[in-house]
Amino acid sequence: MIAKKMVNLVEKNSVIREMFEEGKRLADIYGEENVFDFSLGNPSVPAPSKVKEVIKEIIDSEDPLVIHGYMSNAGFEDVRDAISKNINERFKTNFSYENIIMTVGAASGLNIVLKSILNEGEEVLTFAPYFVEYNSYVENYDGILNVVSPNLENFEPNLEEFEQKITEKTRAVIINTPNNPTGVIYSEDVIKKIAEILNRKQKEYNRQIFLISDEPYRELAYDNIEVPYVTKYYNNTFVVYSFSKSLSLPGERIGYVVIPNEMDDHENIITAVTIANRVIGCVNAPALFQKVVMHCLDIKPDLKTYDENRNLLYNALKDYGFECIKPQGAFYLFLKSPIEDEKQFCNIAKKYNILFVPGSSFACPGYVRIAYCVSTDMIKRSLPKFELLAKETLKK
Amino acid sequence: MIAKKMVNLVEKNSVIREMFEEGKRLADIYGEENVFDFSLGNPSVPAPSKVKEVIKEIIDSEDPLVIHGYMSNAGFEDVRDAISKNINERFKTNFSYENIIMTVGAASGLNIVLKSILNEGEEVLTFAPYFVEYNSYVENYDGILNVVSPNLENFEPNLEEFEQKITEKTRAVIINTPNNPTGVIYSEDVIKKIAEILNRKQKEYNRQIFLISDEPYRELAYDNIEVPYVTKYYNNTFVVYSFSKSLSLPGERIGYVVIPNEMDDHENIITAVTIANRVIGCVNAPALFQKVVMHCLDIKPDLKTYDENRNLLYNALKDYGFECIKPQGAFYLFLKSPIEDEKQFCNIAKKYNILFVPGSSFACPGYVRIAYCVSTDMIKRSLPKFELLAKETLKK
Repeated sequence: MIAKKMVNLVEKNSVIREMFEEGKRLADIYGEENVFDFSLGNPSVPAPSKVKEVIKEIIDSEDPLVIHGYMSNAGFEDVRDAISKNINERFKTNFSYENIIMTVGAASGLNIVLKSILNEGEEVLTFAPYFVEYNSYVENYDGILNVVSPNLENFEPNLEEFEQKITEKTRAVIINTPNNPTGVIYSEDVIKKIAEILNRKQKEYNRQIFLISDEPYRELAYDNIEVPYVTKYYNNTFVVYSFSKSLSLPGERIGYVVIPNEMDDHENIITAVTIANRVIGCVNAPALFQKVVMHCLDIKPDLKTYDENRNLLYNALKDYGFECIKPQGAFYLFLKSPIEDEKQFCNIAKKYNILFVPGSSFACPGYVRIAYCVSTDMIKRSLPKFELLAKETLKK
Repeated sequence: MIAKKMVNLVEKNSVIREMFEEGKRLADIYGEENVFDFSLGNPSVPAPSKVKEVIKEIIDSEDPLVIHGYMSNAGFEDVRDAISKNINERFKTNFSYENIIMTVGAASGLNIVLKSILNEGEEVLTFAPYFVEYNSYVENYDGILNVVSPNLENFEPNLEEFEQKITEKTRAVIINTPNNPTGVIYSEDVIKKIAEILNRKQKEYNRQIFLISDEPYRELAYDNIEVPYVTKYYNNTFVVYSFSKSLSLPGERIGYVVIPNEMDDHENIITAVTIANRVIGCVNAPALFQKVVMHCLDIKPDLKTYDENRNLLYNALKDYGFECIKPQGAFYLFLKSPIEDEKQFCNIAKKYNILFVPGSSFACPGYVRIAYCVSTDMIKRSLPKFELLAKETLKK
């Protein structure tokens, strides 16, 4: 009885649900403290205390008709103005409030961008491994997601294959840096090369090709590595941002899209994205939290915990003989499975009550994603189990 | 450069923007207090003070990782449980938390329901006059919106034509009661007749036809008129609810969908709607406000102001010689234009600095919608202007 396009999604869903149930089942048997669930990308660092203060200040001092009311579908002008200024200061850009559209998180931001630019049968390119929800987002607008195969050496984008896969049907390219699931951050050099290829291909096909930079992890970069601001390198760039991880507000669904004036036809596109925000049913980003994030733009996320987790886990796993690259950002570690079929490896890990997500869920089989946005204590408790897992699976 | 499906929407948008700009322009010239803008459906009664208290209580006493965090895509279980119990108490239904899916307002609720059930080329029926965004929502999923013509006598649904317009391609029917823009509330008798027709047609075509009850105005019913709970009369009913008007929180985007166990294939449909919530990019309804509404379910909206506005405006307009039915609910009054082309009437009204929306925007030309969710003072100030407008346009 459900729509044909939903049938596959409903069938796949039972697999995810099974994984979720498995965690619960193990916790019931062994006790929660003895189950090591590394499967979820949910921030483990609470929202900064300023969020609470700001909420109180706003609801005490401002008109409820304004702070809980409708505004332009693009969001409150003062909020968009503050965000544009903050970006300009940090990245030497030149945006105004008109370049910013507030969204129901980054997921919604990606959807309204794709709805605004994609026609049936057009192609969107992305680099494996990637967040598999992109498939659904592109299918929502009858597009086709094509995937550049992973560069298993260092998980930098495979640029030769990328260039080959751009066709006269390519409408957009999605990049995600810092990356989920690898933690790789694209350097300025990489971004410049991507821009170069896209500019060349735009000319070759006489057609606009958009770069969509999905940046929920922008603020989660370790060792002071710089995350280049992509609009500076390629005019037809959308930046899709979220406060989910930087302010630990994933449930509040608050983010924004940046559309630069340098984009071809930017006025129509800004209008289209704003309308898409309305007609897919979001109408506008949640009002109070627009105001909240406006007052928290200068807060740097507390990276200490994630960084400690990153080093602890990375060093231990390498010690035990596992192979992985050291993540530069986000809060994931992408581990090479010692067994060719990584699902089998996941099953063996379950014996030690360790849960993670198989790489095939990111179009990159042979690897597993370990989300270290968990308590440092849990990581410490899990290490002896990882050692046993290494001994069982890393047979030489 | 924008997607073909968006071109029309972008073009139409300039018309809406013009109206909006017109209000601003008039206010600049004549002063805000001398412009009578009845065009927007934005609550004028502020959120009840309990909303503020509850927000403070929650952020002071609960774990930020929970109240701002991800939860199941269907929403927090305790919130859904409280809502189901509240509905059961009020309407003698028998729902559990599993029948409730929290959504980013009613607009999003309609979208995820339509995405879950609609295939390309299938038809959705609704009754004119209706909220024109339904067109976009249905087009989002490549469906076709067919419209039953308005019953100009009393704006009750035209049931004969309704039955004739149900075809073997009809997948769903949207009703909206209390109605935007007429204020009509469908009685139990009307709902029963709609159910009867749908049951007959389901058998005739051997096909599930869904009734979607769009209920953002459920709590705004005057004179203690009862708004029947539709799931009790027809099994294949979705109720799409919003707290936008009842708690004056339209910008916060918080509502829910009810899917009863009596619906055919309800388990798959619940799963599909939950997944649709995720993949259109909402992921989940805003977390904090899920918790907020849970604690405000017993608050009755302050209808006094709206009711005063309703009576004041209705009585005056009738006195001046205008024709309209008295609204039973919502906060709109649907006035017969004394001039055949109601857009011309709107233009004449502008001379008196009165702004309202032409009925053609609700697929019902010859009428205008007056939104009386404004200050009572503004209505009082506007009455002499309405009288002049009557004198100019109601030539006998």
